[in-house]
Amino acid sequence: MTITITAFERSPDRGRGLARDMRVRWALEEVGEPYEVRLVTFAKMREPAHLALQPFGQIPTYEEGDLALFESGAIVFHIAERHAGLLPRDANARARAIAWMFAALNTIEPPIFDRALATILERNEPWYEQRLHSLELTIGKRLADLSRRLGDADWLDGAFSAGDLLMVTILLRLKGSALLDDYPNLLAYLARGEARPAYKRAFAAQLAVYTAASAG
Amino acid sequence: MTITITAFERSPDRGRGLARDMRVRWALEEVGEPYEVRLVTFAKMREPAHLALQPFGQIPTYEEGDLALFESGAIVFHIAERHAGLLPRDANARARAIAWMFAALNTIEPPIFDRALATILERNEPWYEQRLHSLELTIGKRLADLSRRLGDADWLDGAFSAGDLLMVTILLRLKGSALLDDYPNLLAYLARGEARPAYKRAFAAQLAVYTAASAG
Repeated sequence: MTITITAFERSPDRGRGLARDMRVRWALEEVGEPYEVRLVTFAKMREPAHLALQPFGQIPTYEEGDLALFESGAIVFHIAERHAGLLPRDANARARAIAWMFAALNTIEPPIFDRALATILERNEPWYEQRLHSLELTIGKRLADLSRRLGDADWLDGAFSAGDLLMVTILLRLKGSALLDDYPNLLAYLARGEARPAYKRAFAAQLAVYTAASAG
Repeated sequence: MTITITAFERSPDRGRGLARDMRVRWALEEVGEPYEVRLVTFAKMREPAHLALQPFGQIPTYEEGDLALFESGAIVFHIAERHAGLLPRDANARARAIAWMFAALNTIEPPIFDRALATILERNEPWYEQRLHSLELTIGKRLADLSRRLGDADWLDGAFSAGDLLMVTILLRLKGSALLDDYPNLLAYLARGEARPAYKRAFAAQLAVYTAASAG
């Protein structure tokens, strides 16, 4: 059955791989599943056809036969559950890898995403510096905890898992800020993620979409 | 095997059921699993023994034999996967229920939690009114989308699931604000959640902890 995902016709991140379709592309590349992409504009994301697939008008979505899914975390989990390579076989190790998926999305991503939004939407507000400082304090605490837990390991809990895949895509949003500078082990962790052939294929695919849109 | 979770010795929400152990208690009550609770102070949450269980120094944690888990979403999923009653048996319906779990935690919870934090931490800042307004705009959009999708249904996708359980615990944080007033179907949805016997038992259990701490 053909897998079809949705992605931005013209991603606001200019092809830097920060849009949430990147996670799904990477997961599909890790397990070797081909997929098709339907590009959507912001206007189209609020039309009934897209809202039927994604109640909050976001990307990505995932269609495969009768199944329609939304939420990048749920889509990555669905892929990981049905194919070898993204979740350990041992039941306890699998449960811990899933805990890292939720930690990435619910504990690490919110302040990092808030910071990204603030740098766009609040840059000219009188409180911008103070708000940025407060967000960066929160992010710094999370990174310190994450760095201590990762230690000298390659991945968060044993072999590379869907938890690492989500965590890497989230931490990549901090590249170019100074926030990761104090944590060489997190920088090396990100580099290990980016070096995976499946990551590179997924990154190239989403970049090609942006490049084509810009040339068009 | 005995299940042990952690919870605040003295919850900052004063027993209103908003701390994240409530989700885990409710899930365990839904599936009829007994559990023990180890209470922790904020100081204890930063000690090595707790950080070994929860890298970010939060509650709840979940211990069962050799397995130690963190992240409320992952713990609820673990319970739902191992017991009937919180996830549909049909594979596609199960995947959609999991999508609602991720949507609750990653799309609905962040702005609602940010608003709760802002009302505590930013109340005296010069930007408070504007920041609150901006957060409430975001929350309002999410609620409008959620209300439209729920429609006249009792639950988000067929029978009550772990997705509803998480969504209800998150929306309950808005009770007492005016944000839900425009959405009678969401208010009725919350009331259906609170009326479940398992919810009531879980709520009473967490309230008893707070009451004991206050009397002590």
